[in-house]
Amino acid sequence: MNAPPQNLSEARFAQALRELASIVGQTNMVTSADGLREYFDPFVPQPMARAFAASAAVLPASLNETREILRVARAYRLPLWPVSTGRNFAYGGAAPRLTGSVVLDLKRMNKILAVDEKLAYALVEPGVTYFDLYAYLREHGLKLWIDPASAGWGSIVGNTLERGFGYTPYGDHAAHQCGMEVMLASGELVRTGMGGIEIGRGWQLFKPGFGPSYDAMFMQSNFGVVTKLGLWLMPRPDSYVIAHVKLPREGDLEAAVETLRPLRLGETIRNHAVIEGAIRHAAGMSSRSDWYDGAGPVPDAVVDKMVSRLDIGRWNVHFAIYGEPTVVQARFDIAHRAFAALPGARIDAHRYTPDAEPVGGSERNMAGIPAMSAFRMLDWRGGTGAHVDFSPICPFTGGDAMRQYSVAKARLAEYGFDYYGGFTAGERHLHHIVATIFNRDDAKQTEAAADLQRVLMSDARSEGYGVYRTHLATMDFAASQYDFNDGALLRMSETIKGALDPDGILAPGKSGIWPHVWRDKRGDI
Amino acid sequence: MNAPPQNLSEARFAQALRELASIVGQTNMVTSADGLREYFDPFVPQPMARAFAASAAVLPASLNETREILRVARAYRLPLWPVSTGRNFAYGGAAPRLTGSVVLDLKRMNKILAVDEKLAYALVEPGVTYFDLYAYLREHGLKLWIDPASAGWGSIVGNTLERGFGYTPYGDHAAHQCGMEVMLASGELVRTGMGGIEIGRGWQLFKPGFGPSYDAMFMQSNFGVVTKLGLWLMPRPDSYVIAHVKLPREGDLEAAVETLRPLRLGETIRNHAVIEGAIRHAAGMSSRSDWYDGAGPVPDAVVDKMVSRLDIGRWNVHFAIYGEPTVVQARFDIAHRAFAALPGARIDAHRYTPDAEPVGGSERNMAGIPAMSAFRMLDWRGGTGAHVDFSPICPFTGGDAMRQYSVAKARLAEYGFDYYGGFTAGERHLHHIVATIFNRDDAKQTEAAADLQRVLMSDARSEGYGVYRTHLATMDFAASQYDFNDGALLRMSETIKGALDPDGILAPGKSGIWPHVWRDKRGDI
Repeated sequence: MNAPPQNLSEARFAQALRELASIVGQTNMVTSADGLREYFDPFVPQPMARAFAASAAVLPASLNETREILRVARAYRLPLWPVSTGRNFAYGGAAPRLTGSVVLDLKRMNKILAVDEKLAYALVEPGVTYFDLYAYLREHGLKLWIDPASAGWGSIVGNTLERGFGYTPYGDHAAHQCGMEVMLASGELVRTGMGGIEIGRGWQLFKPGFGPSYDAMFMQSNFGVVTKLGLWLMPRPDSYVIAHVKLPREGDLEAAVETLRPLRLGETIRNHAVIEGAIRHAAGMSSRSDWYDGAGPVPDAVVDKMVSRLDIGRWNVHFAIYGEPTVVQARFDIAHRAFAALPGARIDAHRYTPDAEPVGGSERNMAGIPAMSAFRMLDWRGGTGAHVDFSPICPFTGGDAMRQYSVAKARLAEYGFDYYGGFTAGERHLHHIVATIFNRDDAKQTEAAADLQRVLMSDARSEGYGVYRTHLATMDFAASQYDFNDGALLRMSETIKGALDPDGILAPGKSGIWPHVWRDKRGDI
Repeated sequence: MNAPPQNLSEARFAQALRELASIVGQTNMVTSADGLREYFDPFVPQPMARAFAASAAVLPASLNETREILRVARAYRLPLWPVSTGRNFAYGGAAPRLTGSVVLDLKRMNKILAVDEKLAYALVEPGVTYFDLYAYLREHGLKLWIDPASAGWGSIVGNTLERGFGYTPYGDHAAHQCGMEVMLASGELVRTGMGGIEIGRGWQLFKPGFGPSYDAMFMQSNFGVVTKLGLWLMPRPDSYVIAHVKLPREGDLEAAVETLRPLRLGETIRNHAVIEGAIRHAAGMSSRSDWYDGAGPVPDAVVDKMVSRLDIGRWNVHFAIYGEPTVVQARFDIAHRAFAALPGARIDAHRYTPDAEPVGGSERNMAGIPAMSAFRMLDWRGGTGAHVDFSPICPFTGGDAMRQYSVAKARLAEYGFDYYGGFTAGERHLHHIVATIFNRDDAKQTEAAADLQRVLMSDARSEGYGVYRTHLATMDFAASQYDFNDGALLRMSETIKGALDPDGILAPGKSGIWPHVWRDKRGDI
């Protein structure tokens, strides 16, 4: 058995576990070292694994069981770490922020509760994955698309709550969420928005409801356990075109962003277009060792050679346009004209219909088909591949993108890593995602990867940038960067935390929010 | 002087006012009966006016003055009713829910703090109106549009916080808000989202930031005083077409909605299209007395005659498509084909460019130009025109729209009123807005209008519908309709209220949320 939370004796913890087992049955408890391996962050740098060790996991099958678990947790002041399915890889997986927490694993609650083809929405439980919902839609012949996260095995609820994103016009998962059911620490069940109208049909149709709206407050937070979530689905388009713009020079990032922004703001391009660096693009087609086996990052000259040999861009813009063929053509002509004007640009584009879908991994994501191609990246470095992501928000300008890229690339090189990254286009911002890929069997590399993250975040902060999401190990650090008025935002969060979860049982430390009873753990990893 | 709040003696109240005056200066206090007329709901049915009477108003010019006002309010437990400019007409205007409250009128804080043409956003203070921002953009030659509320004199901050909506693709004002500054009851200043990064530039670019996001929680609530608000602006389109589809029969509402939904979901039509009943459309062109002067509602046969003489539709669909001419044409062809297939449909459409703008009122709103044409409605009934709005959310189906329309029309007729209404298209819902227009000089009509609102809301609730917004007089009633799990949502709101405003000084009763100290006032009007 792993170590209990610090506020409980072994005996009292054992008693709490017995009570939990009496609720869910012994088979739905995980307490063995072997079983708990699943609740370790698979990518965690080894020295940190102990800091984020679950003491047990409990898997309820229903709201009633969840309510009973909360009752026990309150009675024992037992910290719980709710996960939907625990696939939050690169940010901690299923592991808790506070060591000794019991993972509240909701994966057995996995019903697709409603799908409405006419109004294009679904209502799901936490255990439903992108693969599950995709299969359901296909099986029932529904003309609806999902917007998959880059790894299709993830939970829809989990990804949405962490503000994950995809590749279609529905790529902003949080923005396309509509209606939640949340169990508060007290066991009280709340439905947000129009869900307050019990017999109504508006829950998945209009997010705010009447009065204050709370859905966004339950994202990336520890204020409740989300037990149901509504999401909007995209009507299946009659046709679409997926384009790949290859730009030859490192400095072309700036022009790529400046070209994309007006197209995005003017609604010519409505999907979450991606501007991908050469190495990230190449990782789908080759391994690092094919090109370079020296120490430190792959030199620029080698990257240039790789770009030329693989016939890819130094920067690769992927965008897609969906809809009726005439509209798609008119919009594509405008986008094509804009990118073709960039010196050295080459553009591949393919047209698709529901009967002729793309076969390649990343194109499939843009066609609403879940895949696991994101995991190719693990093979890039060799050994036991792992990665941790640095994810700053970048204003949607070429100058900002170049600045974030240049600073990150230089720091990564200093620590011996390649720039493996890209930018995904929101409306007025870019999600800049920089993966530090390391071999977990290499202790030095692993330690360097861990140290690097704070340095990258500090660099960004000094230029006025903040991250939208981060690993367990840097949650306090990230929260501390949002320091306007001496951290007033975090103080407000902790005031609300105290009101909604006075016993401090739900996810202590999530996003830097600590309940009063655990506040001395802040920053302590 | 009007009556003070019930928890303060005349003497203590006078002392509080003196302290407020020492902060803002006597000229920025309103205490005379004459001056306070501005803080009465101009449309309130007279018997209710006493129930919503402000005792005074205080007008700060800065954050510091606002903080000092909150300090005094906490010391005296003085209830404040914050308004941006107080133009929330049909829902209460500037009047407070709790009689005796002091209106905290923010109209002197009226700076346009930032406008960014490249990234298409603005940051404004509460006193900035749609007219103000429009004039600023024109004056500086910026190629950006605003999305005006139907009355251009309203505050951008106020309208957005009440979840008002307009007519362009940016018509969902709450959804196009990005970043807030909020002063809590304690005087603590919080910036939401990326506003936590003090020196950053992401505040108006990415709403959520890191951790829980609160912007939507500060809408229609009483958790803080919003002192700055970011909003996204629409890049000025090169061209646009505004279309008016006239449908001849009362039952055509169903087909109008069924035709519009796939066009909206498929992104052929991206603006907040409107389906307007004959009388609302006719009110811009004539008065009720031109057609009918009998008792009770205008008979259907007269409405038909009016439709024919004015050459309008029994239902009138107004939509607009914006962008590059080739894309606009391709999208318009699809929309035109769909509506032209409806029996008896006639379609007027006009093309516009930045150099040739529409001249008519409602078309100007669809072209991003603020107007006051919404007030035409007051002339419909004659006398001292006033209206109160019933605003249920309607699922975006023809069947739901017909049901809401039929039930409301019958009830309105029973109480002697015309159906003066229409539906504005969100993505998966319609805002159904039903104005009860009455003559305030007619006591019986006024009383009937007031009684009717609860009946309309009860009818809707029994069919599973709820309102998104309501008048002061029905806020408790509306909140009580969101009764899932015995009102768990409202209980959560009041828990948060208690944590953020323990003295209960901010807007007691707003949206049915009462602080502990005033909870016995619930339902008491």
